[in-house]
Amino acid sequence: MKILVIGAAGTIGSEITKALTHNHQVITAGKNSGDVQIDIADVNSIHAALDKVGKVDGIICAAGDVAFNTFEQISREEWDVGINSRLMGQVNLSQIALNYLNDNGSITLTSGIIADYPIAYGVSAATLNGALEHFVSAVSHELPRGIRVNAVSPTVVTESLAVYGDYFPGFHSIDAKDVAQFYLRSALGIENGKTFKAFAGN
Amino acid sequence: MKILVIGAAGTIGSEITKALTHNHQVITAGKNSGDVQIDIADVNSIHAALDKVGKVDGIICAAGDVAFNTFEQISREEWDVGINSRLMGQVNLSQIALNYLNDNGSITLTSGIIADYPIAYGVSAATLNGALEHFVSAVSHELPRGIRVNAVSPTVVTESLAVYGDYFPGFHSIDAKDVAQFYLRSALGIENGKTFKAFAGN
Repeated sequence: MKILVIGAAGTIGSEITKALTHNHQVITAGKNSGDVQIDIADVNSIHAALDKVGKVDGIICAAGDVAFNTFEQISREEWDVGINSRLMGQVNLSQIALNYLNDNGSITLTSGIIADYPIAYGVSAATLNGALEHFVSAVSHELPRGIRVNAVSPTVVTESLAVYGDYFPGFHSIDAKDVAQFYLRSALGIENGKTFKAFAGN
Repeated sequence: MKILVIGAAGTIGSEITKALTHNHQVITAGKNSGDVQIDIADVNSIHAALDKVGKVDGIICAAGDVAFNTFEQISREEWDVGINSRLMGQVNLSQIALNYLNDNGSITLTSGIIADYPIAYGVSAATLNGALEHFVSAVSHELPRGIRVNAVSPTVVTESLAVYGDYFPGFHSIDAKDVAQFYLRSALGIENGKTFKAFAGN
Protein backbone atom coordinates (compact mmCIF):
# COMPACT_ATOMS: atom_id res chain seq x y z
CA MET A 1 0.00 0.00 0.00
CA LYS A 2 0.99 3.62 -0.55
CA ILE A 3 0.75 5.50 2.72
CA LEU A 4 1.38 9.16 3.50
CA VAL A 5 2.79 9.79 6.99
CA ILE A 6 2.46 13.41 8.17
CA GLY A 7 4.76 14.29 11.04
CA ALA A 8 7.10 11.53 9.91
CA ALA A 9 10.14 13.15 11.50
CA GLY A 10 8.55 13.20 14.93
CA THR A 11 9.14 10.78 17.78
CA ILE A 12 6.02 8.77 16.97
CA GLY A 13 5.99 9.48 13.23
CA SER A 14 9.48 8.08 12.72
CA GLU A 15 8.47 4.83 14.42
CA ILE A 16 5.34 4.61 12.25
CA THR A 17 7.48 5.13 9.16
CA LYS A 18 9.99 2.51 10.28
CA ALA A 19 7.26 -0.05 10.99
CA LEU A 20 5.50 0.55 7.65
CA THR A 21 8.47 0.63 5.28
CA HIS A 22 9.06 -3.13 5.50
CA ASN A 23 5.95 -3.91 3.48
CA HIS A 24 4.59 -0.62 2.19
CA GLN A 25 5.47 2.45 0.14
CA VAL A 26 5.73 5.32 2.60
CA ILE A 27 5.68 8.98 1.61
CA THR A 28 7.00 11.08 4.48
CA ALA A 29 5.72 14.60 5.15
CA GLY A 30 6.43 17.36 7.63
CA LYS A 31 6.45 21.10 8.01
CA ASN A 32 10.13 21.34 7.13
CA SER A 33 11.21 17.81 6.30
CA GLY A 34 10.21 14.65 4.43
CA ASP A 35 9.35 13.87 0.84
CA VAL A 36 6.70 16.60 0.81
CA GLN A 37 6.12 19.64 3.01
CA ILE A 38 2.76 20.18 4.67
CA ASP A 39 1.33 22.44 7.36
CA ILE A 40 -2.05 20.98 8.32
CA ALA A 41 -3.14 24.33 9.81
CA ASP A 42 -3.12 25.75 6.26
CA VAL A 43 -5.67 24.30 3.82
CA ASN A 44 -3.67 25.56 0.84
CA SER A 45 -0.67 23.62 2.11
CA ILE A 46 -2.82 20.48 2.49
CA HIS A 47 -4.11 20.81 -1.07
CA ALA A 48 -0.60 21.40 -2.46
CA ALA A 49 0.93 18.47 -0.59
CA LEU A 50 -1.79 15.99 -1.55
CA ASP A 51 -1.67 17.14 -5.16
CA LYS A 52 2.04 16.35 -5.16
CA VAL A 53 1.56 12.94 -3.53
CA GLY A 54 -1.42 11.86 -5.66
CA LYS A 55 -3.60 8.88 -4.90
CA VAL A 56 -2.85 6.97 -1.70
CA ASP A 57 -4.26 4.06 0.25
CA GLY A 58 -3.71 5.59 3.66
CA ILE A 59 -3.02 8.93 5.31
CA ILE A 60 -1.60 9.00 8.80
CA CYS A 61 -1.38 12.27 10.69
CA ALA A 62 1.01 12.20 13.62
CA ALA A 63 0.98 15.99 13.89
CA GLY A 64 -1.22 18.67 15.38
CA ASP A 65 -0.32 21.56 17.66
CA VAL A 66 -2.12 22.78 20.75
CA ALA A 67 -1.25 25.49 23.27
CA PHE A 68 -0.84 24.90 27.01
CA ASN A 69 -1.88 27.36 29.68
CA THR A 70 -4.08 27.67 32.76
CA PHE A 71 -7.79 28.21 32.17
CA GLU A 72 -7.72 31.63 33.80
CA GLN A 73 -4.80 32.79 31.63
CA ILE A 74 -5.40 31.09 28.29
CA SER A 75 -6.24 33.52 25.46
CA ARG A 76 -8.36 33.02 22.35
CA GLU A 77 -5.14 33.20 20.32
CA GLU A 78 -3.83 30.22 22.30
CA TRP A 79 -7.12 28.35 21.85
CA ASP A 80 -6.85 29.05 18.11
CA VAL A 81 -3.50 27.24 17.91
CA GLY A 82 -5.28 24.00 18.72
CA ILE A 83 -8.53 24.85 16.94
CA ASN A 84 -6.65 25.47 13.69
CA SER A 85 -4.17 22.61 13.96
CA ARG A 86 -5.15 19.77 16.32
CA LEU A 87 -8.85 20.03 15.49
CA MET A 88 -9.56 21.78 12.17
CA GLY A 89 -6.14 20.88 10.73
CA GLN A 90 -7.02 17.22 11.03
CA VAL A 91 -10.69 17.80 10.08
CA ASN A 92 -9.67 19.71 6.94
CA LEU A 93 -7.05 17.08 6.12
CA SER A 94 -9.75 14.39 6.34
CA GLN A 95 -12.17 16.34 4.16
CA ILE A 96 -9.58 17.10 1.48
CA ALA A 97 -8.18 13.56 1.70
CA LEU A 98 -11.44 12.15 0.33
CA ASN A 99 -10.32 13.37 -3.11
CA TYR A 100 -7.02 11.51 -2.87
CA LEU A 101 -7.79 8.25 -1.09
CA ASN A 102 -8.31 5.09 -3.09
CA ASP A 103 -11.36 2.94 -2.36
CA ASN A 104 -11.15 1.34 1.08
CA GLY A 105 -8.41 3.77 2.07
CA SER A 106 -7.90 4.98 5.59
CA ILE A 107 -7.29 8.15 7.57
CA THR A 108 -5.59 7.93 10.97
CA LEU A 109 -5.52 11.02 13.17
CA THR A 110 -3.89 11.86 16.49
CA SER A 111 -5.55 12.72 19.79
CA GLY A 112 -3.98 12.30 23.23
CA ILE A 113 -4.52 11.01 26.73
CA ILE A 114 -5.35 14.49 28.05
CA ALA A 115 -8.82 14.00 26.52
CA ASP A 116 -9.44 11.44 29.25
CA TYR A 117 -7.10 12.49 32.04
CA PRO A 118 -6.72 16.24 32.58
CA ILE A 119 -3.33 17.71 33.44
CA ALA A 120 -2.32 21.18 34.54
CA TYR A 121 -2.22 23.63 31.61
CA GLY A 122 -4.09 21.05 29.50
CA VAL A 123 -7.64 22.45 29.26
CA SER A 124 -7.32 23.29 25.55
CA ALA A 125 -5.69 19.94 24.76
CA ALA A 126 -8.39 18.08 26.69
CA THR A 127 -11.15 19.97 24.88
CA LEU A 128 -9.73 19.66 21.38
CA ASN A 129 -8.56 16.06 21.72
CA GLY A 130 -12.08 15.29 22.89
CA ALA A 131 -13.45 17.15 19.89
CA LEU A 132 -11.24 15.15 17.54
CA GLU A 133 -12.34 11.83 19.04
CA HIS A 134 -16.00 12.78 18.66
CA PHE A 135 -15.29 13.92 15.10
CA VAL A 136 -13.78 10.55 14.21
CA SER A 137 -16.71 8.69 15.71
CA ALA A 138 -19.33 10.83 13.97
CA VAL A 139 -17.71 11.21 10.56
CA SER A 140 -17.01 7.49 10.22
CA HIS A 141 -20.69 7.08 9.31
CA GLU A 142 -20.39 9.51 6.40
CA LEU A 143 -17.29 8.37 4.53
CA PRO A 144 -17.73 7.09 0.96
CA ARG A 145 -16.16 4.17 -0.95
CA GLY A 146 -15.22 2.10 2.09
CA ILE A 147 -12.90 4.77 3.44
CA ARG A 148 -12.28 4.46 7.18
CA VAL A 149 -11.14 6.94 9.85
CA ASN A 150 -9.69 6.35 13.30
CA ALA A 151 -7.63 8.21 15.87
CA VAL A 152 -4.79 7.16 18.12
CA SER A 153 -4.60 8.68 21.60
CA PRO A 154 -1.13 8.20 23.10
CA THR A 155 -0.09 8.85 26.66
CA VAL A 156 3.28 10.58 27.10
CA VAL A 157 5.90 8.64 25.14
CA THR A 158 8.95 7.33 26.96
CA GLU A 159 11.29 9.18 24.59
CA SER A 160 9.70 12.51 25.61
CA LEU A 161 9.76 12.01 29.38
CA ALA A 162 12.85 14.19 29.81
CA VAL A 163 10.99 17.13 28.26
CA TYR A 164 7.33 16.53 29.14
CA GLY A 165 7.48 14.10 32.05
CA ASP A 166 6.91 16.77 34.69
CA TYR A 167 3.55 17.60 33.11
CA PHE A 168 2.44 13.98 33.51
CA PRO A 169 3.19 13.19 37.15
CA GLY A 170 2.63 9.53 37.93
CA PHE A 171 1.48 8.70 34.40
CA HIS A 172 2.84 5.54 32.80
CA SER A 173 4.70 6.25 29.58
CA ILE A 174 4.63 4.20 26.40
CA ASP A 175 7.47 3.59 23.94
CA ALA A 176 6.95 5.34 20.60
CA LYS A 177 7.35 2.04 18.74
CA ASP A 178 4.40 0.64 20.70
CA VAL A 179 2.28 3.70 19.86
CA ALA A 180 3.20 3.17 16.20
CA GLN A 181 1.50 -0.24 16.22
CA PHE A 182 -1.88 1.40 16.89
CA TYR A 183 -1.44 3.50 13.74
CA LEU A 184 -0.69 0.34 11.76
CA ARG A 185 -3.74 -1.33 13.25
CA SER A 186 -5.86 1.61 12.09
CA ALA A 187 -4.30 1.88 8.62
CA LEU A 188 -4.04 -1.82 7.81
CA GLY A 189 -7.01 -3.25 9.73
CA ILE A 190 -10.76 -2.98 9.24
CA GLU A 191 -11.88 -0.88 12.22
CA ASN A 192 -13.65 2.44 11.69
CA GLY A 193 -14.65 5.40 13.84
CA LYS A 194 -12.52 4.35 16.79
CA THR A 195 -10.01 6.03 19.03
CA PHE A 196 -7.25 3.60 19.94
CA LYS A 197 -6.13 4.52 23.43
CA ALA A 198 -2.40 3.93 23.52
CA PHE A 199 -2.30 3.74 27.28
CA ALA A 200 -3.48 1.51 30.05
CA GLY A 201 -3.51 1.55 33.80
CA ASN A 202 -3.68 5.34 34.02
CA MET B 1 -29.81 32.42 44.96
CA LYS B 2 -29.32 34.88 42.10
CA ILE B 3 -29.10 32.98 38.83
CA LEU B 4 -28.54 34.25 35.29
CA VAL B 5 -30.28 32.19 32.61
CA ILE B 6 -28.93 32.76 29.09
CA GLY B 7 -31.29 31.65 26.34
CA ALA B 8 -34.18 32.13 28.75
CA ALA B 9 -36.71 32.66 25.96
CA GLY B 10 -35.91 29.31 24.36
CA THR B 11 -37.87 26.09 24.67
CA ILE B 12 -35.59 24.74 27.38
CA GLY B 13 -34.55 28.10 28.84
CA SER B 14 -38.14 29.11 29.55
CA GLU B 15 -38.72 25.88 31.49
CA ILE B 16 -35.50 26.44 33.47
CA THR B 17 -36.66 29.96 34.30
CA LYS B 18 -40.10 28.74 35.32
CA ALA B 19 -38.66 26.04 37.57
CA LEU B 20 -36.18 28.40 39.26
CA THR B 21 -38.39 31.42 39.88
CA HIS B 22 -40.31 29.72 42.71
CA ASN B 23 -37.33 29.92 45.05
CA HIS B 24 -34.66 32.00 43.34
CA GLN B 25 -33.98 35.37 41.78
CA VAL B 26 -33.68 34.78 38.05
CA ILE B 27 -32.14 37.22 35.61
CA THR B 28 -33.17 36.32 32.08
CA ALA B 29 -30.89 36.93 29.11
CA GLY B 30 -31.03 36.42 25.37
CA LYS B 31 -29.81 37.83 22.10
CA ASN B 32 -32.93 39.95 21.65
CA SER B 33 -35.00 39.41 24.78
CA GLY B 34 -34.81 39.13 28.55
CA ASP B 35 -33.60 41.39 31.33
CA VAL B 36 -30.21 41.73 29.63
CA GLN B 37 -29.04 41.11 26.07
CA ILE B 38 -26.11 38.81 25.40
CA ASP B 39 -24.53 37.15 22.38
CA ILE B 40 -22.15 34.50 23.72
CA ALA B 41 -20.27 34.43 20.39
CA ASP B 42 -19.08 37.98 21.16
CA VAL B 43 -16.78 38.42 24.18
CA ASN B 44 -17.58 42.12 24.38
CA SER B 45 -21.24 41.26 24.66
CA ILE B 46 -20.48 38.76 27.44
CA HIS B 47 -18.48 41.36 29.37
CA ALA B 48 -21.19 44.00 28.95
CA ALA B 49 -24.00 41.67 30.02
CA LEU B 50 -22.20 40.35 33.10
CA ASP B 51 -21.19 43.89 34.10
CA LYS B 52 -24.85 44.84 34.01
CA VAL B 53 -25.95 41.77 36.01
CA GLY B 54 -23.19 41.95 38.62
CA LYS B 55 -22.41 39.19 41.09
CA VAL B 56 -24.41 35.99 40.76
CA ASP B 57 -24.52 32.55 42.34
CA GLY B 58 -25.17 30.68 39.14
CA ILE B 59 -24.95 31.11 35.39
CA ILE B 60 -26.93 28.80 33.15
CA CYS B 61 -26.33 28.84 29.40
CA ALA B 62 -29.12 27.25 27.40
CA ALA B 63 -27.81 28.75 24.17
CA GLY B 64 -25.13 27.97 21.60
CA ASP B 65 -25.39 27.77 17.84
CA VAL B 66 -23.91 25.17 15.52
CA ALA B 67 -24.26 24.65 11.75
CA PHE B 68 -25.57 21.48 10.13
CA ASN B 69 -24.30 20.05 6.87
CA THR B 70 -22.78 16.91 5.39
CA PHE B 71 -19.09 16.32 6.00
CA GLU B 72 -18.25 16.58 2.32
CA GLN B 73 -20.08 19.91 1.98
CA ILE B 74 -19.48 21.65 5.30
CA SER B 75 -17.30 24.78 5.02
CA ARG B 76 -14.92 26.32 7.53
CA GLU B 77 -17.40 29.20 7.85
CA GLU B 78 -20.03 26.70 8.94
CA TRP B 79 -17.61 25.04 11.36
CA ASP B 80 -16.87 28.51 12.77
CA VAL B 81 -20.54 29.03 13.69
CA GLY B 82 -20.22 26.25 16.25
CA ILE B 83 -16.59 26.95 17.16
CA ASN B 84 -17.44 30.55 18.05
CA SER B 85 -20.77 29.88 19.75
CA ARG B 86 -21.36 26.32 20.97
CA LEU B 87 -17.72 25.81 21.95
CA MET B 88 -15.79 29.05 22.47
CA GLY B 89 -18.93 31.03 23.31
CA GLN B 90 -19.50 28.80 26.30
CA VAL B 91 -15.75 28.55 27.07
CA ASN B 92 -15.39 32.34 27.02
CA LEU B 93 -18.55 32.73 29.09
CA SER B 94 -17.08 30.37 31.70
CA GLN B 95 -13.74 32.18 31.78
CA ILE B 96 -15.30 35.63 32.11
CA ALA B 97 -17.88 34.32 34.59
CA LEU B 98 -15.13 33.65 37.13
CA ASN B 99 -15.03 37.40 37.78
CA TYR B 100 -18.76 37.54 38.51
CA LEU B 101 -19.55 34.32 40.36
CA ASN B 102 -19.80 34.32 44.13
CA ASP B 103 -17.91 31.66 46.09
CA ASN B 104 -19.37 28.19 45.49
CA GLY B 105 -21.20 29.45 42.43
CA SER B 106 -21.94 27.32 39.42
CA ILE B 107 -21.78 27.39 35.64
CA THR B 108 -24.08 25.11 33.62
CA LEU B 109 -23.50 24.76 29.90
CA THR B 110 -25.34 23.01 27.07
CA SER B 111 -24.17 20.13 24.93
CA GLY B 112 -26.45 17.69 23.09
CA ILE B 113 -27.11 14.05 22.33
CA ILE B 114 -25.37 14.27 18.94
CA ALA B 115 -22.08 14.06 20.86
CA ASP B 116 -22.95 10.44 21.60
CA TYR B 117 -25.27 9.48 18.75
CA PRO B 118 -24.40 10.88 15.33
CA ILE B 119 -27.15 12.04 12.99
CA ALA B 120 -27.04 13.11 9.35
CA TYR B 121 -25.68 16.66 8.94
CA GLY B 122 -24.48 16.54 12.55
CA VAL B 123 -20.69 16.12 12.25
CA SER B 124 -19.95 19.63 13.53
CA ALA B 125 -22.48 19.33 16.36
CA ALA B 126 -21.05 15.94 17.36
CA THR B 127 -17.50 17.30 17.34
CA LEU B 128 -18.21 20.53 19.22
CA ASN B 129 -20.62 19.01 21.73
CA GLY B 130 -17.91 16.45 22.44
CA ALA B 131 -15.40 19.27 22.82
CA LEU B 132 -17.66 21.05 25.28
CA GLU B 133 -18.14 17.92 27.39
CA HIS B 134 -14.38 17.37 27.56
CA PHE B 135 -13.92 21.04 28.42
CA VAL B 136 -16.32 20.76 31.36
CA SER B 137 -14.60 17.65 32.64
CA ALA B 138 -11.09 19.12 32.35
CA VAL B 139 -11.76 22.65 33.58
CA SER B 140 -13.64 21.47 36.66
CA HIS B 141 -10.25 20.72 38.23
CA GLU B 142 -9.08 24.31 37.78
CA LEU B 143 -11.95 26.42 39.10
CA PRO B 144 -11.28 28.58 42.17
CA ARG B 145 -13.37 29.35 45.27
CA GLY B 146 -15.58 26.27 45.11
CA ILE B 147 -17.02 27.22 41.74
CA ARG B 148 -18.45 24.25 39.84
CA VAL B 149 -19.14 23.62 36.16
CA ASN B 150 -21.36 21.04 34.47
CA ALA B 151 -23.09 20.53 31.14
CA VAL B 152 -26.51 19.22 30.21
CA SER B 153 -26.83 17.15 27.04
CA PRO B 154 -30.46 16.93 25.94
CA THR B 155 -31.90 14.71 23.26
CA VAL B 156 -34.44 16.33 20.93
CA VAL B 157 -37.14 17.96 23.06
CA THR B 158 -40.76 16.98 22.54
CA GLU B 159 -41.78 20.57 21.87
CA SER B 160 -39.34 20.70 18.90
CA LEU B 161 -40.32 17.42 17.25
CA ALA B 162 -42.46 19.17 14.63
CA VAL B 163 -39.40 21.10 13.45
CA TYR B 164 -36.45 18.82 14.18
CA GLY B 165 -38.03 15.39 14.55
CA ASP B 166 -37.09 14.24 11.04
CA TYR B 167 -33.40 14.72 11.89
CA PHE B 168 -33.75 12.34 14.85
CA PRO B 169 -35.44 9.27 13.35
CA GLY B 170 -36.37 6.78 16.04
CA PHE B 171 -34.91 8.88 18.86
CA HIS B 172 -36.97 9.23 22.02
CA SER B 173 -37.77 12.84 22.83
CA ILE B 174 -37.81 14.46 26.26
CA ASP B 175 -40.12 17.19 27.52
CA ALA B 176 -38.35 20.54 28.01
CA LYS B 177 -39.54 20.68 31.65
CA ASP B 178 -37.72 17.41 32.31
CA VAL B 179 -34.54 18.72 30.69
CA ALA B 180 -34.83 21.80 32.93
CA GLN B 181 -34.50 19.62 36.02
CA PHE B 182 -30.96 18.62 34.99
CA TYR B 183 -30.00 22.31 34.91
CA LEU B 184 -31.41 22.74 38.40
CA ARG B 185 -29.52 19.68 39.57
CA SER B 186 -26.30 21.21 38.23
CA ALA B 187 -26.93 24.72 39.58
CA LEU B 188 -28.32 23.78 42.99
CA GLY B 189 -26.49 20.50 43.71
CA ILE B 190 -22.87 19.69 44.48
CA GLU B 191 -21.71 17.85 41.38
CA ASN B 192 -18.81 19.16 39.31
CA GLY B 193 -17.26 18.40 35.93
CA LYS B 194 -20.15 16.28 34.75
CA THR B 195 -22.32 16.10 31.68
CA PHE B 196 -25.87 15.24 32.62
CA LYS B 197 -27.27 13.21 29.74
CA ALA B 198 -30.91 14.19 29.45
CA PHE B 199 -31.83 11.08 27.52
CA ALA B 200 -32.12 7.38 28.05
CA GLY B 201 -32.87 4.34 25.97
CA ASN B 202 -31.36 5.80 22.82
